[in-house]
Amino acid sequence: MKSLLSIVLVILTSQLSYSQTYTGGKEDIDHILKNTVLFSTYIKDSNYKMIGASYTNDAKIFPNNRDIIEGTKDIIAYWTLPDGVSIKHHKVVSNEIKILGDEAYDYGTYEGTTLLKNGKEVSWKGKYVIVWKKIDGIWKMYLDIWNSIK
Amino acid sequence: MKSLLSIVLVILTSQLSYSQTYTGGKEDIDHILKNTVLFSTYIKDSNYKMIGASYTNDAKIFPNNRDIIEGTKDIIAYWTLPDGVSIKHHKVVSNEIKILGDEAYDYGTYEGTTLLKNGKEVSWKGKYVIVWKKIDGIWKMYLDIWNSIK
Repeated sequence: MKSLLSIVLVILTSQLSYSQTYTGGKEDIDHILKNTVLFSTYIKDSNYKMIGASYTNDAKIFPNNRDIIEGTKDIIAYWTLPDGVSIKHHKVVSNEIKILGDEAYDYGTYEGTTLLKNGKEVSWKGKYVIVWKKIDGIWKMYLDIWNSIK
Repeated sequence: MKSLLSIVLVILTSQLSYSQTYTGGKEDIDHILKNTVLFSTYIKDSNYKMIGASYTNDAKIFPNNRDIIEGTKDIIAYWTLPDGVSIKHHKVVSNEIKILGDEAYDYGTYEGTTLLKNGKEVSWKGKYVIVWKKIDGIWKMYLDIWNSIK
């Protein structure tokens, strides 16, 4: 296993400091970062086909207070919103990505805003760990677990 | 990356079916499985020194409704129980472990019982993803995230 590229960016603001560490080939890292942005777009667009395609066929997701959910059909069912509800904002920030051959782990934080039927907005944030797999040259999520930040 | 060993055990009961898939060298798999059992022992014994030593120095844990907690000191503080509270039962079942060189991912379920000050017991269960790292020949948890199963 070679680490072709290791980027450490330390971003300091007046309020907080955090670091981003991406280890692996630039092409793989860029591919995963791009897929992360695309996933937020699919969520905001309620593009369930592409949400499903973002995961491997045998992927597992781990929503709080639920059993492990496995496979494209059940994963799409989980993400499918009730009529009249939409996601107005969705953003993922990866703190670390490490490529290990055709697999990778990734952790970071997310935030979003849900627009409810009654017009009210609910904002939320959390943290996640994803295990990615490269399937036929395409990085897809294999394990996706998250929980809230208060 | 070689998969020296791939074990698939399908355990069928009258109520449920689940599979355990362990991919990697037998020594590494056994080491991680042993550490998983030991971790439950440390939790039940409130052995905070060994709980801390079960994680890498730069480990991150992801408890629900909290920020990411990083490093041995803060991780031990998280696991430290209030006086008079103890963990009577703690068990982890790994559905999959995959060794990727000196790193590995692992997911599965856990269950436990907390004995409260007033003598009452509270049982709970959940699911987890762990990223392990082999540090000086010892497998330790680097990322540890979990959430509840209702």
